[in-house]
Amino acid sequence: MTRIGFIGLGNMGGRIARRLVDAGHPVLGYDPAAGAAERAGATPAASVAEVARESDQILLSLPDSRAVEAVVLGPDGVLAHAGPGQIVVDLSTAAPDSTRRIAAALAARDAAYLDAGVSGGAAAAERGTLTLMVGGEEHALERVRPTLAPFAAKVFPMGPSGAGHSAKLLNNFLNAVSLAATSEVMVAARKAGLDLRTLLDVLNSSSGANWATANRFPHIVEGDYLEGGLTSALMTKDVVLYVDHLRGLGVPALNAAGPLASFGLAANLGYANQISNRVVDAIGD
Amino acid sequence: MTRIGFIGLGNMGGRIARRLVDAGHPVLGYDPAAGAAERAGATPAASVAEVARESDQILLSLPDSRAVEAVVLGPDGVLAHAGPGQIVVDLSTAAPDSTRRIAAALAARDAAYLDAGVSGGAAAAERGTLTLMVGGEEHALERVRPTLAPFAAKVFPMGPSGAGHSAKLLNNFLNAVSLAATSEVMVAARKAGLDLRTLLDVLNSSSGANWATANRFPHIVEGDYLEGGLTSALMTKDVVLYVDHLRGLGVPALNAAGPLASFGLAANLGYANQISNRVVDAIGD
Amino acid sequence: MTRIGFIGLGNMGGRIARRLVDAGHPVLGYDPAAGAAERAGATPAASVAEVARESDQILLSLPDSRAVEAVVLGPDGVLAHAGPGQIVVDLSTAAPDSTRRIAAALAARDAAYLDAGVSGGAAAAERGTLTLMVGGEEHALERVRPTLAPFAAKVFPMGPSGAGHSAKLLNNFLNAVSLAATSEVMVAARKAGLDLRTLLDVLNSSSGANWATANRFPHIVEGDYLEGGLTSALMTKDVVLYVDHLRGLGVPALNAAGPLASFGLAANLGYANQISNRVVDAIGD
Amino acid sequence: MTRIGFIGLGNMGGRIARRLVDAGHPVLGYDPAAGAAERAGATPAASVAEVARESDQILLSLPDSRAVEAVVLGPDGVLAHAGPGQIVVDLSTAAPDSTRRIAAALAARDAAYLDAGVSGGAAAAERGTLTLMVGGEEHALERVRPTLAPFAAKVFPMGPSGAGHSAKLLNNFLNAVSLAATSEVMVAARKAGLDLRTLLDVLNSSSGANWATANRFPHIVEGDYLEGGLTSALMTKDVVLYVDHLRGLGVPALNAAGPLASFGLAANLGYANQISNRVVDAIGD
Repeated sequence: MTRIGFIGLGNMGGRIARRLVDAGHPVLGYDPAAGAAERAGATPAASVAEVARESDQILLSLPDSRAVEAVVLGPDGVLAHAGPGQIVVDLSTAAPDSTRRIAAALAARDAAYLDAGVSGGAAAAERGTLTLMVGGEEHALERVRPTLAPFAAKVFPMGPSGAGHSAKLLNNFLNAVSLAATSEVMVAARKAGLDLRTLLDVLNSSSGANWATANRFPHIVEGDYLEGGLTSALMTKDVVLYVDHLRGLGVPALNAAGPLASFGLAANLGYANQISNRVVDAIGD
Repeated sequence: MTRIGFIGLGNMGGRIARRLVDAGHPVLGYDPAAGAAERAGATPAASVAEVARESDQILLSLPDSRAVEAVVLGPDGVLAHAGPGQIVVDLSTAAPDSTRRIAAALAARDAAYLDAGVSGGAAAAERGTLTLMVGGEEHALERVRPTLAPFAAKVFPMGPSGAGHSAKLLNNFLNAVSLAATSEVMVAARKAGLDLRTLLDVLNSSSGANWATANRFPHIVEGDYLEGGLTSALMTKDVVLYVDHLRGLGVPALNAAGPLASFGLAANLGYANQISNRVVDAIGD
Repeated sequence: MTRIGFIGLGNMGGRIARRLVDAGHPVLGYDPAAGAAERAGATPAASVAEVARESDQILLSLPDSRAVEAVVLGPDGVLAHAGPGQIVVDLSTAAPDSTRRIAAALAARDAAYLDAGVSGGAAAAERGTLTLMVGGEEHALERVRPTLAPFAAKVFPMGPSGAGHSAKLLNNFLNAVSLAATSEVMVAARKAGLDLRTLLDVLNSSSGANWATANRFPHIVEGDYLEGGLTSALMTKDVVLYVDHLRGLGVPALNAAGPLASFGLAANLGYANQISNRVVDAIGD
Repeated sequence: MTRIGFIGLGNMGGRIARRLVDAGHPVLGYDPAAGAAERAGATPAASVAEVARESDQILLSLPDSRAVEAVVLGPDGVLAHAGPGQIVVDLSTAAPDSTRRIAAALAARDAAYLDAGVSGGAAAAERGTLTLMVGGEEHALERVRPTLAPFAAKVFPMGPSGAGHSAKLLNNFLNAVSLAATSEVMVAARKAGLDLRTLLDVLNSSSGANWATANRFPHIVEGDYLEGGLTSALMTKDVVLYVDHLRGLGVPALNAAGPLASFGLAANLGYANQISNRVVDAIGD
C-alpha cells in the first residue's frame, strides 16, 4: 500500500489530509503547529525527515516558495532523504522558477516533483471537489492519481515542471485584474448615477463580463462582501509573484498596474487582511 | 405618424436605418457621403437642418462627440431648429460630459435628448438584435420605444442623462481590460510551455474567466482572429474616453494602464487598424 | 504700430497683458468677465469679433482647446475675421491635434497661428521672465518677437505647428511622473524608517534626481507644500491630454499609469483643488 | 590589525577588494570562480567558512538576496561561525526584508550586519569614489569606517537595518521611472516633429528635468547609448524588488507600471542584456 506523507496541515492542508484519511489512506503528517496532525486524523511525525524517510508519496501544502525550499532543500529536508520512485506533490502557491529548481534537484536523485496549483478554496477542499493544475512528468501524475482522487474532482495536466504553479498564478492574476477593474467601474458608475443592478445585467450579457461581474458584484451591491475569500494582502502577493514570473519569462508585464495599485491601496487603507472584494470601498472611499 | 430622421448613415447607422425602413417607418436621412441615404432606403435630406425641421424623432449615429457637437450645436444644427416634444436619440459612442451639455441645451428648448450606448456590432444591427443602454428621461424613452423596437432586442434604462454613454464606456473598458490582460497571460503561458487549450479550460471554469477567455481565445489559439471587430485604434480611443470620464467624475483611474499600454503597443507595431485581438501578437512578438 | 489684441485676461492672461501695456504697447482686450480688460490696463473690446477685426496680432490665453476652438472657429470668431498677415499666438495649454486643425484653417485665409507653450507660472508672468516653447512658421515667430519680449525671457522654436503645445504637454508629463513617483518613494521611505533629509541628499547626488527631489521635497519634508502651484485636478487634466496626444501619434502610453493613479487618488481624497504636491499625503494617508 | 574578509569578487567586489589591498589592508577573499581572489590581490580562502572564521569584518558583494542568504544562513555559512564583535557589511543589491532577517540572526550571536547600498558603478569602484547608503547600528558603522574609506568617498547613514538596501532600491526606482518616461517622451517628440536638442534644453531648464534628461539623453540623441551601465534585465529586477518592498511596507505601488512595461518590453524585444538606455528604441521601434 502506498505510504502517504503530508507536510503543512493548515487551513487547506489539514482539510485535504482529512479527505485522504476518510478515504482509508494512512497519512503520516507533519506541521510545526502542535496537534495539527491529530486534528487532521493523521499519524503525527516528529520531523520533516521522518515524513521523507517513511513515505512513498509526499504532499506539501505550504505558504510560499521560501517555506517549500526550507522543507525540501533545507538541512535534513525532503531532498536529503529522497530516493528512486518517490513522488512529491506540491500543492502550495509558489514561484515557478523555484519549483523548477526543486524538481531538478529531486530528479537528480530519481525522485519526481509535481507542482499542483489548487483552485477552489476551503469549502471545495472539504467536499473533495478541488481543481488541480499539474506540472511535471505525466507518468508520475498517473501514479499519484489515486492519491489525488479523494480531494480533487478535476485534474488538468498543464505541461512540464512549473506549469502547474504557473497556471495557478495566471488564473489568479486574471481574477485580480477583473476584480480590480470591475471595482473601479462600479465606483465610477455610482458616481455617474447609473443603476448598478441594471449595469451588472448589461455587463453580464456583453463583452464586459468577467468572474467579478458574474459572481462577486451581484452580491456586493446587496452589501454582501462574501467574507472568507482571498484577502487584499494575499492578492497583492500573488500579483507580485506573477510580475516576477513574467520577468523570468521575458514577457513584459503591461497589465499588472491595475491590481498592484488597487489592492495596494486597499491594504494601505486598512483592508489588508479583509476579503479582496473590499477593494471597491478602497477606491470609492 | 411619427416622422423619423436619421443623421449618420455609415457602418452602423446605415444598417439601423435600413431596419426602420424595412419595418415600415418613413426615414428622412442625412449623411455627408453621397448616396448613403439611398443605400439605406431612406429619403435623402439636403442638410442636417432639413432633418431637424422635418422630424419628430432624430437618431444620430456619429463617430465621436466632436461630430455630435458639430451636428447638434453647430451653425444651422439640430439645436437651432429644435422644438417642444422633439426627441433626439444619440447612438454614438461619446463622452458623457459632452452628452450632458447637449441634453441641457436641448432641454432649454423643451426637446429631449436620450443617449443610447449600443452593444452588438454590425451583425446584430442587421438582425435587429442590438442591446441599448439608455440615459435620460424615462418618459422620453417610453415615447421612442416603437422606434427602437425594429433594431434593438433589449433596451436598458441606465439612469439620468449621460448614463447610457457612460455604461457603454464602462462595458468597453472592461472588455479592453480582459482582452489586454488575457493576451499577456496567453503569451506568458506559451513561453512557460503550458498547454494553451487546457489553460483556457481551467480559466473558464475558474475565477480567471472573462469574455476574452470564453469567446475570443478559444478561436485565437486555433489561428482565427475573428477579423471584423473593434480595432486596436478604436479600443485605445474608448479607453482614453474612459480615462477622461473618470477624471470628470473624480474617480482615480487605477486600472487603465494595461489596455493603454497593450493596445497602444499594438497600434505602434502596425496593428492599429486590425482587430484588437491582434494585441496578443503585439505582446508576444 | 502693431495693434495687439488679447483674448482671455485671467490669472495668466491678465498678467501678460499688463506687461505689454507697461511696455508701451496698446492692447485691445476681451474677456467675458466684466472689468478684466480694465484691470489689466487694456482697452476693453465688446466682443471677440472686435478684437479680431482691429488687431494685427492676437494673443490667446484660454483654459483649454474647447475654449480656443469656440473663440477661433465659433460663429463670429477669430477665423471669420482673419485676414492676410494677421498672426494669432495661442498661449493656452491645449491639445496639439486641435492646434494643428486651427492653424490649417487660419492658413487658408493667409493668417498665421503660433502655438506657444508657457512655462513659469504667475510669478514669472509678473516679472516678465516666462519661457515659451513655440510651434509654427519661424518667419511668423520672428515678426511677433517684439510682442513677446516684454513677458518672455526665453523663446524656444520647437518645430512645426503643434510642436509648442506638444512640448508643453511633454514637459508637464515628466513633471507629473517625477512628482507622483517621488511622493510614493518618500511615503515608502518614511514607513521603512529612513532619514528623509539624508535620502534627499542621496537622491539629489545620484541617478534618482529629478525636479521634485531637487525643488519640491526639500520644502515638503519641512512642512511647506509650496501652495499656489498646479493643482491635482489640473495635473490630471494635462496627463489625460498627454495620453490622448500619444494616441494620436501612435506611441504607446506605457508610463502614464503612475501620475493618472496618483493624482486621481489625490483628487478623490479631497485634494483636487490643492497643489499637486499634496499627492504625497494622498498616497501616505 | 583588523582582519578583513571578502566574499564575492566579481565585477564590483573584485574592484573594491583591490582598493583595500592597495591601501595596505590584508584581505582574505572567497569566490567560487577560480583565480578571482588572486586577481583582486587577496589571499585566497578555501571556503565561506574559512573567511567567516578568520575575519573581524566581512564584506559581501553578491548578486541577490538568494545568494546572500545561501552564504550567510546556509550550511557552514557565515552565521554558523559568527561571534561577538564581528561585523558583516553587505554591499549587494538586496531585498530589505531579507536583510532584516539576516541582521536579526547575526544579532542573536552578538555580531553586527550593516546593509550598504552602493551607488557609482565599476568606474567609481576603481577610483574609490563610491557612495554608500548604510542601514544598521551606527556604532558598528563607526567601527568599519576605516575599512570603507579606501573605496567610498561618501557614506550616508540612512537609518535602521534594511534602510541602506531600501535607499538603494528607492534611488534605482526613481532612476528607472525617469529613464522609462523620458524615453517615451522622446519617441513622442520625434513623431511630433519636435527638435530633440531644443526639447532637452527646455526640459532641463524646467519642471520636466531629471537624471535622464540631464545625463543620458544629451548623449543618446547624438547616437551614444553609454554602453556599460545597468541592463534592462537588471533594471526590471530592481523594479520587481521595489514592488515587493512596497508590498511588505503596505504602500500602494502606483508608479511601477511605467518601468515594468518599458524595460519588460525592451527585454522582450531583445535588449535584455544591453544597457537600459536602449529602452527608447524598444518603445520607438
